[in-house]
Amino acid sequence: MHPAELIEQKRNGGEHDPGELEALILGYARDEVPDYQMAAWCMAVYFNGLTSAETDALTDAMIRSGATLDLRAALGRKVVDKHSTGGVGDKTSLAVGPIVAACGVPLGKMSGRGLGHTGGTLDKLESIPGFRVELSTEELVAQLRDVGVAIVGQTADLVPADKKLYALRDVTATVDIVPLIASSIMSKKLAAGAEAIVLDVKVGDGAFMKTLDDARVLATQMHQIGTWAGREVTCLLTDMDQPLGRAVGNALEVEEARDTVRGDGPADLTELVLEACARLLAYSDLGIDAAEGRRRAEAAVADGSALETYERWIRAQGGDPDPAALERAPVQRPVPAPRDGVVTRVGALDVGLAALALGAGRRRKDDPIDHAVGVLCFAKRGDTVLAGDDLAEVHARDDAAAERGAAAVLAAYELGDEAPPERGILLDVVD
Amino acid sequence: MHPAELIEQKRNGGEHDPGELEALILGYARDEVPDYQMAAWCMAVYFNGLTSAETDALTDAMIRSGATLDLRAALGRKVVDKHSTGGVGDKTSLAVGPIVAACGVPLGKMSGRGLGHTGGTLDKLESIPGFRVELSTEELVAQLRDVGVAIVGQTADLVPADKKLYALRDVTATVDIVPLIASSIMSKKLAAGAEAIVLDVKVGDGAFMKTLDDARVLATQMHQIGTWAGREVTCLLTDMDQPLGRAVGNALEVEEARDTVRGDGPADLTELVLEACARLLAYSDLGIDAAEGRRRAEAAVADGSALETYERWIRAQGGDPDPAALERAPVQRPVPAPRDGVVTRVGALDVGLAALALGAGRRRKDDPIDHAVGVLCFAKRGDTVLAGDDLAEVHARDDAAAERGAAAVLAAYELGDEAPPERGILLDVVD
Repeated sequence: MHPAELIEQKRNGGEHDPGELEALILGYARDEVPDYQMAAWCMAVYFNGLTSAETDALTDAMIRSGATLDLRAALGRKVVDKHSTGGVGDKTSLAVGPIVAACGVPLGKMSGRGLGHTGGTLDKLESIPGFRVELSTEELVAQLRDVGVAIVGQTADLVPADKKLYALRDVTATVDIVPLIASSIMSKKLAAGAEAIVLDVKVGDGAFMKTLDDARVLATQMHQIGTWAGREVTCLLTDMDQPLGRAVGNALEVEEARDTVRGDGPADLTELVLEACARLLAYSDLGIDAAEGRRRAEAAVADGSALETYERWIRAQGGDPDPAALERAPVQRPVPAPRDGVVTRVGALDVGLAALALGAGRRRKDDPIDHAVGVLCFAKRGDTVLAGDDLAEVHARDDAAAERGAAAVLAAYELGDEAPPERGILLDVVD
Repeated sequence: MHPAELIEQKRNGGEHDPGELEALILGYARDEVPDYQMAAWCMAVYFNGLTSAETDALTDAMIRSGATLDLRAALGRKVVDKHSTGGVGDKTSLAVGPIVAACGVPLGKMSGRGLGHTGGTLDKLESIPGFRVELSTEELVAQLRDVGVAIVGQTADLVPADKKLYALRDVTATVDIVPLIASSIMSKKLAAGAEAIVLDVKVGDGAFMKTLDDARVLATQMHQIGTWAGREVTCLLTDMDQPLGRAVGNALEVEEARDTVRGDGPADLTELVLEACARLLAYSDLGIDAAEGRRRAEAAVADGSALETYERWIRAQGGDPDPAALERAPVQRPVPAPRDGVVTRVGALDVGLAALALGAGRRRKDDPIDHAVGVLCFAKRGDTVLAGDDLAEVHARDDAAAERGAAAVLAAYELGDEAPPERGILLDVVD
C-alpha cells in the first residue's frame, strides 16, 4: 500500500477496498503513514466522499487500531448506550443515565471533552466537586453492576486512530465531512461494546448539521454502520435552533439535569430525555416496547427512584450530588426584554458563543474551563413576554464580562408580534 | 493568519489575499506551518484552483522565501533563460545554450534533476566525465562573461519554499495542479534573474500536459505570471506524443545534442532548437527580430562557432566534450520492424518507461542513474519501414535488460498502411 496512490485514487473519485483502508488507518495509528498524507487524504474525502462500503471498512479499521470492551461478557447483561452529536445546552445524557438505570437497565457511557461553546459531558460532570471521570475498566464494570450508570472518559487504548485523526482533522479544515464524522462516532460506540445505541443527532443553527436533510444523511450513515456491525441503532433528529432547556454552562447544566431527573426540568429537555429513555429501555433486555419504556421512565422520575439513582451515581464517582455544592458565578445579571412580544427566535449559536466568551467553553484544546459561568434562557421560542421581563440571566466572573454577555444574549433573541409555528423537540427518527 | 482558516477558505472556494498567501508560504518555509496543513491546502487547491491574482501572489511569496540573483547587475547584460516542462528525449537546452552564446547572447540556466523516465538536464550533463554542475555565483557569472553559457544546479538558497513544497506535493498526490506548477516554474526563473524567458511546454502522451488545451492553460498562467513580474515570456507548445529526436537516455542525449549543435541533429529536435534560439535572440539586447535570430542561429551552427562554444562550455565546467569520452552501454540490441509499413505512432510514454526500466531514470529521488543506457528511436512517426529494418536500438547493461527493453520499445511502435497526418514539432505559441 502506497499512501500517495490511495490519496490519488480518492482524489480522482475512486473507491478503496477494505484492505487498502485498513492499511491506511492502521499505518497511520502506527505512525507509519505521516500526518501530511492523512491530511491530503481527508481533504480528498471532503470533495469525493466515501461509499457505504468504504465507511464501514474505515470504521472497522478504526476499531481494530486499539482495544475493545465487551461489557456484555463482563456484566452478563445487554448494555445500551446513548450519544449526542452535540449542541448548546445539551445535558441529556446526565439525566438519561440515572433514569434508565433506575428502570433496571445498565447504561455505561464513554464521553469526551468539549471543543467549542461549552464543555463536553465530562467537563459538565467535573463541575461537580470531587467527581472522577477516570475509572479503570474494573471500576466501570463494578459501578455498572452496583449502581447501573457510569459516565467516564474514553480510555486511551480504545480507537487510538480516531483520537489521532480527529486532532489532525481539527487543524486541517477536515472536521465537517459526514462519513468521517459517522465513522468517528460509531467506531467509539462499537469499540466500547454497546449492543444497542440511541443517537441524538442535533439539527439547526447551534449544531453541526444545519438542516434536517443534512442530519438525515449523517443519521442514515451511522445507522448503516451500526447495522453492518450487527448492532441496533436509533437516531433521534432533534431541534438545535434554540438552546436545549434553559441552562448553558457546565454547573448550570448539571443542576438542570438534576431538576429533570426529579421531574422539574424544562419541557423540551424533559421530552427529549423521556423519549431517549423510552427507546433505550425498548432496546434493553427487559423485553418491553418503547411505550412501556416511556411509562417506566416517567414512573422512575415521579417516584424519586431516578433522583436516588442520580445521587448514588454521583457519589459512586466521588462527587457531591447536592446542587448547593456546585460553584456559583459571582455576578448574575438579568437580560430584560426590551419590548412586549413573542419570542420568535433564541439563536442557539449566539447563546453558545456568549457562553464561550464568558469562559464556559474552550477555543483551544488546552484552554481551562470556568465551570460556574453561563447563561439561563428563561424565555424560549413561542413564549410571550412583557417589556422588562427577564428573557435570560447571565452568570459571569465579573461585571464587565456580565455586561458583554448580556448584550450578546440579548442579540440572540428576536421578539415579534405573532407566535412562530410550533415545533416539538423531536423532528424525525431514523431507525 | 491561522493556517486552518486559510485551508477552510480555499476548501470553500474562497480567494486568499496576497498577505494571507505570503504568511502561509513564508510560514511554511520557516517550518511554522506544518506539512499536514500545507498538504490539506494543496488538495483544496487541486479541487478549487487559484485565481490569477492568487497565483501571482503565491509566486511572489515563493521568491521571497529565499535569495535572488541579479545577473543583469553582475554581467551588465540582459540575460535570457529557457525552460522546458519536460518530456522524453528532451535535450533541447544542451543545444540551445551554446548556439545562443555563439551568437553573443549569454544564457545562464539553473536546472534540476529528473524524477521519472530519464534524468533531468543536470543528470544528462553529468554523463559527461568530469562535468561539474555545482558552481558558485561568482563562477557562474565569470563563465557567462567568458564563455556565454552555463547550466548549473539550483542553489539551495533560491526559492527554498518551492523545494520543500515540491517534495511534499510529490508524496501527497498534489503534483498535477496547474497553478502550483506554473508558480513553481516561474518562481525559480524569476528568482534566478532572467529578464526574458522562453518556455517549452510539452504536449502529449509523454508530457505532463496531455492535450493542447491543457497546455494552453498552463502556458497562459506562466505567461501571465511573467507579465505581472515585468518579464518577457514566450511559451512554445511542442509535440510530445513521440520522443523528441532519436535519443532517450542521458549520455545518448548528450551526444545527440552535440550533433544538433554541429548541424547533424534529427529534424524535429533541430527545428525546436533553432526556433527557441530565434526567440531568445529576439529577446536579447542584440536588437534583432526572431527571423534575424533564426538566421544567426543557423549561421552559428553552419560555421562551427556553435560547436566551438559547446566545447568551451563543457570544458569550462570541467567536462570532456569529446563524444568518445561518454560511457557506452555494453549491450546494444536492435528492434527490427515486424512488417512493412508506415510508423503511425511512437508512444513517448512507453519509450520513456522502457528507458526508466533500463536504468536511465529514477523511480525515487535517491535512486542512482545509469548514464549509459537508453533507447535510440531511428524510425519516427510518418517514416516508411520494411520488415527487418531497425525501428530502434536498445542500449542496456546486460542481455536480459536489453531483451525486455526491446520488447517494451517494440510495443511503443504502431505500424500502419497509411501515413498519419503530418504534424510539426511546434504546435502553438503563447506570447
